[in-house]
Amino acid sequence: MSTAWKSRYAQRVKQIKSSAIRELLKITQRPEVISFAGGLPAPDVFPVDRFQEACRRVLEYNAHTALQYGATEGYEPLREMIARHLSRYSIRAKAENVLITSGSQQALDLIGKLLLNPGDKVLVEAPTYLGALQAFNAYGAEYVSVQSDNDGLRTELLEPSLRLGPKFMYVLPNFHNPAGTTLSEGRRHELVLLADKYGIPIVEDDPYGQLRYEGEHLPPLVVLDRENLRRDDGYSLGNVIYLSTFSKTLAPGLRLGWIVAPPDVIAKLVQIKQGADLHTSTFIQMVSYEVAKEGFLDEHVKLIRKVYGARRDAMLDALKHNFPSEVKWTHPQGGLFLWVTLPASMDCQSLFEEALKQNVAFVPGDVFYASPNGEGGHHFRLNFSYMQPELIREGIKRLGAAVKHQLHSRHAVHAS
Amino acid sequence: MSTAWKSRYAQRVKQIKSSAIRELLKITQRPEVISFAGGLPAPDVFPVDRFQEACRRVLEYNAHTALQYGATEGYEPLREMIARHLSRYSIRAKAENVLITSGSQQALDLIGKLLLNPGDKVLVEAPTYLGALQAFNAYGAEYVSVQSDNDGLRTELLEPSLRLGPKFMYVLPNFHNPAGTTLSEGRRHELVLLADKYGIPIVEDDPYGQLRYEGEHLPPLVVLDRENLRRDDGYSLGNVIYLSTFSKTLAPGLRLGWIVAPPDVIAKLVQIKQGADLHTSTFIQMVSYEVAKEGFLDEHVKLIRKVYGARRDAMLDALKHNFPSEVKWTHPQGGLFLWVTLPASMDCQSLFEEALKQNVAFVPGDVFYASPNGEGGHHFRLNFSYMQPELIREGIKRLGAAVKHQLHSRHAVHAS
Repeated sequence: MSTAWKSRYAQRVKQIKSSAIRELLKITQRPEVISFAGGLPAPDVFPVDRFQEACRRVLEYNAHTALQYGATEGYEPLREMIARHLSRYSIRAKAENVLITSGSQQALDLIGKLLLNPGDKVLVEAPTYLGALQAFNAYGAEYVSVQSDNDGLRTELLEPSLRLGPKFMYVLPNFHNPAGTTLSEGRRHELVLLADKYGIPIVEDDPYGQLRYEGEHLPPLVVLDRENLRRDDGYSLGNVIYLSTFSKTLAPGLRLGWIVAPPDVIAKLVQIKQGADLHTSTFIQMVSYEVAKEGFLDEHVKLIRKVYGARRDAMLDALKHNFPSEVKWTHPQGGLFLWVTLPASMDCQSLFEEALKQNVAFVPGDVFYASPNGEGGHHFRLNFSYMQPELIREGIKRLGAAVKHQLHSRHAVHAS
Repeated sequence: MSTAWKSRYAQRVKQIKSSAIRELLKITQRPEVISFAGGLPAPDVFPVDRFQEACRRVLEYNAHTALQYGATEGYEPLREMIARHLSRYSIRAKAENVLITSGSQQALDLIGKLLLNPGDKVLVEAPTYLGALQAFNAYGAEYVSVQSDNDGLRTELLEPSLRLGPKFMYVLPNFHNPAGTTLSEGRRHELVLLADKYGIPIVEDDPYGQLRYEGEHLPPLVVLDRENLRRDDGYSLGNVIYLSTFSKTLAPGLRLGWIVAPPDVIAKLVQIKQGADLHTSTFIQMVSYEVAKEGFLDEHVKLIRKVYGARRDAMLDALKHNFPSEVKWTHPQGGLFLWVTLPASMDCQSLFEEALKQNVAFVPGDVFYASPNGEGGHHFRLNFSYMQPELIREGIKRLGAAVKHQLHSRHAVHAS
């Protein structure tokens, strides 16, 4: 029977590879492992009491709506709230610009379905978010990768890649996953101008934007695009589709994200979402609205910033004290991740195996490259949101010892 | 800007048409309208108190798991419970055969993504479920339609269509949407044998199977397929993918469905679901498990059968007393719908407009045909689950008057 099924799988399935991270996470879920591998929020900051109260209220006053089929676009008060919140970042949007999705991952999937035919190119950063590659792969995407550095995507390298005619650019400007970097303001302007010049839309993925621990907020691409276009029709939406989520501010187990786009793009995405899952759980949307409303989300984000900021500091401090000077890492101003660069002589895979023997886990860098060129072998990603500071210190100490051990055995080999 | 986006939409978007039903529902949602149009469960049977208690318990004892990222496959105790429940219908399955989806609609979408390349054919019944067409359209499906009658799909007409090499057959054996018919036991055997003979898998969609109001339960295709294959490896799963949902037994606002299939098919679907939405809300899965467990679901289904059975009876009775003898309708043994056939001289669209003037709504039949041939113009679908019996009686009375008016004005035209 297996063979009967196999012969029936669509061509695109060949492109669907199992997520290396998820397989990895299974190994690293043993309780004794200090894991910097996942991208998990800290459960100790989940606002559980507020959820209790929200569930109680929704079921007491609105159960017949909450448990019934709902509109594909999403729960109207939630769409309005999201549109209002966006205005703090100077993003001008109305409810009609907002489509609620089953997490950001579904937003990526719907965008792939809307825009990609097999063989179409997507311009991505090197490295980039693995989940986006998984979503786009299912539609037969091919990739044009452009290098990034400590200031994010290297916009001075963009033009030759834009001339290859990608269908869109996928960019994470704030506290990049996996790189931990932030796209500088100058490059944001350049990126928006180039997108306009070449007529290539931008998908701006911003799951972490609210989680800034130092420095000043930078304008989103969607805002700079409006200024560039000098639009004044009440929306700030032209060439950019903007994505965000509650996964990193309220809880990922909700699976709630959203797409912000011009109304005609939203209308197409609504049709696609109808066929994909009819709509996102009405109950989850109403409960999340009840949790977030009346300023709670803002207060709660302050708490998360404090907790994650302290964990980032613990990790940066531990890296400084335990890692040899040959190893470099990014200094994230926010978000959940930082990115480590090993000297060219060192191999990430053997370090990974060594670290796992010491019960420490991370994600080797190669999975984050759309166009593998061996570069990923010298990088790895560390998450600092999930583990408590004491465990971060202990884990980085062990990891530092493993790095030194690998580095010295390399030197010993070279010297012998 | 609109044009810039339009030129970028993928080819497949041309095939994504807005759901006629959802547009229709917007008109028919006025409170004064007696609507037989939707496919909505009755909110008065939602087990609200049980949901209250389940939310309270999940958040009190398991909040850190419920609000966190979870496995793509689904919440293990829920998968196990579903596998156990299937054994009542002689479907032998283990948790590893079950993938939790964000409603049955996502199940259809994932199957389309797994099996369909643009131009691939899907064999469907005429009429068939509109949501399945929407899901498959997104992957460039074409259709081979086979007629059905009061005993469901006319299996004696199948072979020429199977020779056209469809990628799979999509069939609703129990209490068909929209037809309200049930596939006879003899035809179930024939269907399974033909599927095996031609090597064409069956997607068996069974959202209503538990809601039987009269007659004996018939064996699912997935069970007959096992018997035909004489498999004895502990599973009953070979050539059939089986789908079901909590939407019609607990609540549709949850968006919880599942796919039952051989483990290697599930493994592929898990990869696809990862890219589509990572996983279905952990919180929703845990709450639904808490609601359904310890026999509650079975007890609750008994209540639904009683309520919906009485509504079906009210509608059948009202049809008998108010509709002229030229009009025929199906006698559903379960489910939510029945299917009305007008005499060839009558036009469904003008009846629809006339009925709406009388504040009664239904869904004209043409949207349920994958290969429109004008036949749909003589049929319409009536839902009997959503409206209370008094309103069913009043609505059918008004509809009967509209039918008679149309019929007589036709006759008058013919006579003049």
